[in-house]
Amino acid sequence: MTSCDTEVPGMTTDRIEALTDGIFAVAMTLLVLNLKLPQGGALGVDADLLSLITGQSHLFSNYAISFLLAAVFWIQHHQQSHVIKRTYRTHIWLNILILMFVSLIPFSTSLISDYHDDWMASVFFGMNMFILGLLFYLNWYYATRNHRLVALNLDPQRIAVGKKRGAVTPIISLLAVTLALVDVRISSLAYFLIPVILFHPTFRYDPNASKER
Amino acid sequence: MTSCDTEVPGMTTDRIEALTDGIFAVAMTLLVLNLKLPQGGALGVDADLLSLITGQSHLFSNYAISFLLAAVFWIQHHQQSHVIKRTYRTHIWLNILILMFVSLIPFSTSLISDYHDDWMASVFFGMNMFILGLLFYLNWYYATRNHRLVALNLDPQRIAVGKKRGAVTPIISLLAVTLALVDVRISSLAYFLIPVILFHPTFRYDPNASKER
Amino acid sequence: MTSCDTEVPGMTTDRIEALTDGIFAVAMTLLVLNLKLPQGGALGVDADLLSLITGQSHLFSNYAISFLLAAVFWIQHHQQSHVIKRTYRTHIWLNILILMFVSLIPFSTSLISDYHDDWMASVFFGMNMFILGLLFYLNWYYATRNHRLVALNLDPQRIAVGKKRGAVTPIISLLAVTLALVDVRISSLAYFLIPVILFHPTFRYDPNASKER
Amino acid sequence: MTSCDTEVPGMTTDRIEALTDGIFAVAMTLLVLNLKLPQGGALGVDADLLSLITGQSHLFSNYAISFLLAAVFWIQHHQQSHVIKRTYRTHIWLNILILMFVSLIPFSTSLISDYHDDWMASVFFGMNMFILGLLFYLNWYYATRNHRLVALNLDPQRIAVGKKRGAVTPIISLLAVTLALVDVRISSLAYFLIPVILFHPTFRYDPNASKER
Repeated sequence: MTSCDTEVPGMTTDRIEALTDGIFAVAMTLLVLNLKLPQGGALGVDADLLSLITGQSHLFSNYAISFLLAAVFWIQHHQQSHVIKRTYRTHIWLNILILMFVSLIPFSTSLISDYHDDWMASVFFGMNMFILGLLFYLNWYYATRNHRLVALNLDPQRIAVGKKRGAVTPIISLLAVTLALVDVRISSLAYFLIPVILFHPTFRYDPNASKER
Repeated sequence: MTSCDTEVPGMTTDRIEALTDGIFAVAMTLLVLNLKLPQGGALGVDADLLSLITGQSHLFSNYAISFLLAAVFWIQHHQQSHVIKRTYRTHIWLNILILMFVSLIPFSTSLISDYHDDWMASVFFGMNMFILGLLFYLNWYYATRNHRLVALNLDPQRIAVGKKRGAVTPIISLLAVTLALVDVRISSLAYFLIPVILFHPTFRYDPNASKER
Repeated sequence: MTSCDTEVPGMTTDRIEALTDGIFAVAMTLLVLNLKLPQGGALGVDADLLSLITGQSHLFSNYAISFLLAAVFWIQHHQQSHVIKRTYRTHIWLNILILMFVSLIPFSTSLISDYHDDWMASVFFGMNMFILGLLFYLNWYYATRNHRLVALNLDPQRIAVGKKRGAVTPIISLLAVTLALVDVRISSLAYFLIPVILFHPTFRYDPNASKER
Repeated sequence: MTSCDTEVPGMTTDRIEALTDGIFAVAMTLLVLNLKLPQGGALGVDADLLSLITGQSHLFSNYAISFLLAAVFWIQHHQQSHVIKRTYRTHIWLNILILMFVSLIPFSTSLISDYHDDWMASVFFGMNMFILGLLFYLNWYYATRNHRLVALNLDPQRIAVGKKRGAVTPIISLLAVTLALVDVRISSLAYFLIPVILFHPTFRYDPNASKER
């Protein structure tokens, strides 16, 4: 800790959590604005709504992928903030940056919906997720380094598992970016690896395992 | 409870409630964006606003129906979360799925507003409500099964009434979907049965009745 | 209190306040979406932005009027909920109705902005405010009647002042509706009476005055 | 304190903070709606997405500048409200005015994005930030004057630093307005001075320095 990086007077972690819950809630709900059917069928010629919806099925899968990825990050935020007991200047601004890229998710999702054949859209979306994952990893590294913002008796096993889990999203996002350069249609499939990996026992913190050692 | 389904470190029920209140608030307020009058009358020819509004009266009834259905689900959420004392992995993701379909309500409402003569729009809207109702039912079943997430002394009468009430919305939504196939104009009327049924004494939890037994 | 109107299991007043704060925050911020300049000047011909903005000055005054009226209702909500200690079924649904008309404010504001010469727009806006004011009045009447939801020792002076203050907004809104039928341009001026009246000492609760009696 | 400016019955500072966190969260997330690519490339001709995005790079820098400026104000709000222990009528309405101009930020940002060559857009944006900064300054001055709303033992050094920091944003915003009249392209650069100045040790409150005296 340098003399520049100190507690900010009047800032507490529960304030950051209130803004975080708010921005996650708004960003996740704004995703619904991307579900716009082509104007052709509206107001009059409505016999084709079924084919309109099935023809735009990628809109719904993109909605689900973005919503669930945002939920993964939201859970990660609370797992981190649960053990972070105080806040420093660097920690606050890392969190502001995180929120700036959370708030960007509806735009990234609109790109992969409007330009679903364009590799650039998938790269942009993947980079959004990569940067978010990286910022979360840095946030955890910063907070736990020398127990800077966490309790001194925090289980080292928990810190290690937090790092291992935190590496999953940025690595998978880079994989999705790479896949987009090969074939844009399979890029999104990479994200399905995230729940598979995070659910695996070696990526989960087990309080009892730690106590037994 | 299998070894896979455990408490998630750092997740508490009050975090889920904060995100839930946020997403409900945004989704219910975004419904107002569906109240768009046809562009023809705007900016210049405004002599017809009264006829424009009365001609679009279905927009306002759809707004009210969606807002009140969302409110029914929001009340159900708090009745459930009031007695749910802890959270497991499955419970968190059931809640994320619930929020994903809450967030979808403004889109479903836009369908029955823009395509009000199309049975498919009413089916889509009805399926949204059916899935939401089903997820809430599963959430209650999961949480109260063997008192998994609730207090051991929770009144069994309360669990039973919760199940009975939880079955109302999905069943009525299926009825609305069926009606849409018969005559799209009467589909929405089904939802008016929900308050009637839920208000009936046999569908309400009475703490005193339980104590008397 | 009839046997039908009882406490709803699992509902507490702080839940209602969380949803209320959320819906007020979203509705007040969505007002900004009505600040749309005519498309003519955008993207290219931008020499006229100053005249565009001054030509659309009614957009900004409508924004301010709606934001401040919403703030008046938000303050009223917290003044009421501060002394309301429990909640009944009727009280919850009165609050849901209140939120439904709070959420409608951005649409009513868009009407008086898009159709600023049309008396019907001002009538619609005024009726929105009238219904909101009436619901708040009913909420206070319901909660304080026989001290139904408030403490038994709540100062009667406070209940009386709450009623007197609660009558101001609906009466002034009816005045604005009437003025709209006479001359639509002066309708909005009526709302400026609200702060003047509410600020007057006879419309303010003075704890000391009550103690002295 | 005059007899007109008293505590408002039923209003507490935590209510104001809840609405504030909500409006900041929505306003910061609504900034994403300004990230609209020109319609030309969408739906069909999508080979040019990369050039579309790079050609609209000012949209992304405006998004970042607005988001970070809003974050600066949000932090300032919590630094102030952390020591403000009670609320008066004037304080509430100062906060409502603050929220009205926070809620305006997405519109001001849309102006500097849609009319990026027009000095008027930068002046409007700068005036939004100037008024916000001024209202925050007034809020702090009002609350700390004769320790009106703060604890009597609040460190005078903290009050002084709060004033000094509070003067930075309005002064820099006026500089940005002035620069817009000279050359609109360099106006935004002024805002980069804000973190530089606020980070400087003479603009930071040091509890220890105060204790040593």
